[in-house]
Amino acid sequence: MRHQDVPRRRGRRPGGTDTRAALLDAARAVFSEQGYDGATVRAIAARAEVDAAMVNHWFGSKEGLFAEAVLKLPFNPADVVERLLDGDVDGLGERIVRTFIGIWDTTGGGVFTALVRSITSHELAVHALRDFLVRNVVGKVLAPVAPDDAEFRATLVASQLVGMGLVRYVARFEPLASADVDTMVAAVAPTLQRYITDTIR
Amino acid sequence: MRHQDVPRRRGRRPGGTDTRAALLDAARAVFSEQGYDGATVRAIAARAEVDAAMVNHWFGSKEGLFAEAVLKLPFNPADVVERLLDGDVDGLGERIVRTFIGIWDTTGGGVFTALVRSITSHELAVHALRDFLVRNVVGKVLAPVAPDDAEFRATLVASQLVGMGLVRYVARFEPLASADVDTMVAAVAPTLQRYITDTIR
Repeated sequence: MRHQDVPRRRGRRPGGTDTRAALLDAARAVFSEQGYDGATVRAIAARAEVDAAMVNHWFGSKEGLFAEAVLKLPFNPADVVERLLDGDVDGLGERIVRTFIGIWDTTGGGVFTALVRSITSHELAVHALRDFLVRNVVGKVLAPVAPDDAEFRATLVASQLVGMGLVRYVARFEPLASADVDTMVAAVAPTLQRYITDTIR
Repeated sequence: MRHQDVPRRRGRRPGGTDTRAALLDAARAVFSEQGYDGATVRAIAARAEVDAAMVNHWFGSKEGLFAEAVLKLPFNPADVVERLLDGDVDGLGERIVRTFIGIWDTTGGGVFTALVRSITSHELAVHALRDFLVRNVVGKVLAPVAPDDAEFRATLVASQLVGMGLVRYVARFEPLASADVDTMVAAVAPTLQRYITDTIR
């Protein structure tokens, strides 16, 4: 085996939890650029500056790494729900826009983009998007406040949120992609507010 | 070469224009299911029931087939613009929702889904989506009627349209995915109308 002749290149990091965190960051970046199919273990390891064997060591496989890096959200949906429900119902549309853009702008839209870009190859990405957008966040926020028709309202809210995310972070259509949070709130919050509390049929 | 010993399987169709049309239909179906990266020439040829060599014969490559099947729209954007502008400004939101859902429901959302599912691997898919949604259709419709800020308004309209398309045809979140056209018009047309003609800043 030639591996025994050539010293194994281990990269700069040790094999500990730093390596694991570096792989998670690198995976979010590469999955969001390339989608699930396009991303290779080799490219993710190179981005993290560690040996590709570390992916198997920490996550078992590309699949396992995707599950940890992308499908597990970097925040607790229940906390988001609690924050959204903290205030009057009339301000819900605005709080949703601020919260989502706040999260996405902070993380560079990385997890969202990785999810959208993996929808093709990965049925789990569709489930994750639905669980997060419809079931665990928007659905939970609407349940106590929507007058009726909560499920249809939740999918309408999801449609505008996912479209805003796609245009802003994935397709990057200008001028929406560079609009600041207040501009986005003024434009989009009334849409969400109407989907939540107004007559829609 | 073993190929010379084994009779070439040519499938059921002759190598004429029927084959070309069959390949275009099959390509839209497979690209919309698998995205650009996931779709193989072999799978498309098999769906069309023709020999894989016919792809090179008619389109040069997978790339060429994608350009013809997905990037060339199955209708003329100028006709869509003309139809949308035929009526009063207050009905524009409704006409846009009816027209888009009409086109997408008829084609099974195939071209749209193929575009969204190829955004990862194919920068051209992003350009095609922007050219169609923002520049050639929504932008052209807004130019004569939007009071100001036409470009921001166009990207807002695009965000709701692309989100509606994604939730309805790609991710298939219910109950939005199965809602009929009139239900979608009642819910979404006022959003688009506001983005086009109301104060949004």
